[in-house]
Amino acid sequence: MAAIAILGHGVVGSGVVEVLRTHEESITGRAKEPIRIQRILDLREFPGLPYSGLFTKDFEEILNDPEVGIVVEVMGGLEPAFSYVKACLENGKSVVTSNKELVAAKGAELLALAQKNNLNFLFEASVGGGIPIIRPISQCLAANEVTEIAGILNGTTNFILTKMIREHMAFGDALRMAQELGYAERDPSADVEGADACRKICILASLAFGSHVYPQQVHTEGITKITLEDVAYAEAWGGVIKLIGEVKALKNGRVHIQVAPMFVSRESQLSGVDDVFNGILVRGDATGDVVFYGRGAGKLPTASAVVADVIDCVKHMKARKYLYWEDARPDYVEPYENAPQDFFVHVQGKGSSGEAFAQAEEVFGDIKRLIRKGEKEGEAGFTVKALGQGQFEEKAAALVQKGVTLLGRIILSEY
Amino acid sequence: MAAIAILGHGVVGSGVVEVLRTHEESITGRAKEPIRIQRILDLREFPGLPYSGLFTKDFEEILNDPEVGIVVEVMGGLEPAFSYVKACLENGKSVVTSNKELVAAKGAELLALAQKNNLNFLFEASVGGGIPIIRPISQCLAANEVTEIAGILNGTTNFILTKMIREHMAFGDALRMAQELGYAERDPSADVEGADACRKICILASLAFGSHVYPQQVHTEGITKITLEDVAYAEAWGGVIKLIGEVKALKNGRVHIQVAPMFVSRESQLSGVDDVFNGILVRGDATGDVVFYGRGAGKLPTASAVVADVIDCVKHMKARKYLYWEDARPDYVEPYENAPQDFFVHVQGKGSSGEAFAQAEEVFGDIKRLIRKGEKEGEAGFTVKALGQGQFEEKAAALVQKGVTLLGRIILSEY
Repeated sequence: MAAIAILGHGVVGSGVVEVLRTHEESITGRAKEPIRIQRILDLREFPGLPYSGLFTKDFEEILNDPEVGIVVEVMGGLEPAFSYVKACLENGKSVVTSNKELVAAKGAELLALAQKNNLNFLFEASVGGGIPIIRPISQCLAANEVTEIAGILNGTTNFILTKMIREHMAFGDALRMAQELGYAERDPSADVEGADACRKICILASLAFGSHVYPQQVHTEGITKITLEDVAYAEAWGGVIKLIGEVKALKNGRVHIQVAPMFVSRESQLSGVDDVFNGILVRGDATGDVVFYGRGAGKLPTASAVVADVIDCVKHMKARKYLYWEDARPDYVEPYENAPQDFFVHVQGKGSSGEAFAQAEEVFGDIKRLIRKGEKEGEAGFTVKALGQGQFEEKAAALVQKGVTLLGRIILSEY
Repeated sequence: MAAIAILGHGVVGSGVVEVLRTHEESITGRAKEPIRIQRILDLREFPGLPYSGLFTKDFEEILNDPEVGIVVEVMGGLEPAFSYVKACLENGKSVVTSNKELVAAKGAELLALAQKNNLNFLFEASVGGGIPIIRPISQCLAANEVTEIAGILNGTTNFILTKMIREHMAFGDALRMAQELGYAERDPSADVEGADACRKICILASLAFGSHVYPQQVHTEGITKITLEDVAYAEAWGGVIKLIGEVKALKNGRVHIQVAPMFVSRESQLSGVDDVFNGILVRGDATGDVVFYGRGAGKLPTASAVVADVIDCVKHMKARKYLYWEDARPDYVEPYENAPQDFFVHVQGKGSSGEAFAQAEEVFGDIKRLIRKGEKEGEAGFTVKALGQGQFEEKAAALVQKGVTLLGRIILSEY
């Protein structure tokens, strides 16, 4: 019998209880012993539940319970989650979490603590919800050097973009619909500004390349400025707009990492990942491209990933799983300005569209014009190859000098 | 230091050596000890290789070497692979294989033998080449009841169908191209008749539902009868033709399992899996649909999956991985005739196309007409819902009575 405690009884926490209760027989078979929920920590009251006797408001009661060998942290947020998880790992308890904010901010520290105390710290559910991704990267692809990862890592923004692409809804309307359907929070900034996707690509980058990348090191753009005109230009280019988190190992030992809306070609496996689904492309030197697709969030998908980690913990109480990365190295992240990228550029001139394009050509050199349906007088869209952000800004300033307004620019994805 | 032997130095075997040699440092780190190739069994001579001193033609030399704890079987075919693998498991050696024919025919027996002797028998590379699928199904999805699996499991036929769909090549021409590119064997029957896909869905079915399904129990259709007219009808229907292997748990405790070319909707994640790529959809009660995509064959992808299993074996020399299924139960596979399916039906009448369709409607009842580009005089295509194969054949016979020829029928995929 393995006794566990659950910190938090929100969407994921209650889902963990549900999965453990509804799959009891098969889980016992797979873990090779029954898993009992000993205690659930939550400050709220849940009087009507069949297991309401398990609740406590006192974390110390869990920390000091010698029977509890595994603690599931599904509270979310950095504090008190971090203090609680740290205390558990310092007191001989393995930890399973779905908390991406915690892993992205404190992963290296907590993994080192787990290693020191011969405990497990597992977080399959922190990226991709019910999609197995942490374990495949760390195990299945062990005989393979991962060179690049690119993914649609946030279901809320993918839902909004899908509505903009398929139904020509404006960003604000699509966001409101996502809120009404419960896909977006009342304060949607962590999703639409890219912070959530940023935490996830940090976790994947840290895992794949062995050095922690912190969210504040990552150039992050959200989707709030994306317009239906951009969507139409993406279509003219032969693709769709997706919010992509990506990381690539560079030859200089650093990584190029960013989160931004990008034009993704219709030929790409990522272009067909729609609605609230996530898709993660892992490029390896031996395997080539492997893509994982599924529901990136939601109560039961996320809870099933948490419970799979709990089963793994029960089976490996004395043997640590191999899951580890070093703390960040100075200068490990390549400065964003240096990376040459292809861009779509959207401008508005004072004369005809042809004149605006000609002025852009004078400044940018070899560019390729895109014409969208319903192009306005003086509006022009074009793509330009291999510019660093610094170079791009110089060119854009020169264009403004000519009286052409820069309406926006979007990266062209390589994936 | 872990010593391994490799049985077979063909495409996959030489790839295993290459992956072990080129990724030595990272593999040692992940396995926590160096992995040394002690012996390679092959009847051929390989005089020019830097490791030519490792070759032997005598299996007994490997079997009786007490240092060899793990044997990699990458010979393919049933014999002598089965005898060798069995002997290894009887003599204290764990086995890693990429041999789908072996696992599909002898999986239950070899897993039972491995369990009895506390050894590992691993076969990640037997399905999906470099795509992690065996391990995710058995581990990551442990807290989830898998209810259905459907996949594009054979790269050769997918390449041929992609050429037929995208470039309107006839089947024979596309097959010849696949042979010229090395994707198809000189005798392509195992691929184009569906036997290879059948072995793979048997392995996935056995793993997901716990009872061995043997290839001879599975209704299997290949793609040799697929025409460009079928491709055009699929397009008119809103999809593409793919060779699908699928298995579904039924409420009566049996499984519905089949391999056949099917119309797959463009909305499906499987419809975008093109060329030699594989895609596998796993439907679970908690996770919903998860899709795995990548190269299903090839030297390095397959070899990297084999080596990942070897690493796992080295790390678990004393602890068995959970990977097991029972031998087949009588009547476990639902008779193919019983399963109601939706079909596309292609007929040729003696009058106009409209007359042929009207005659079909009299026989089949509620059907839906499809009109392809370039439809010939008297030709008609239509879809019909929820017919068992037995019922379908009765209707088809009645149609022939009316002087309408049945040109073919293709299942409409649910995925």
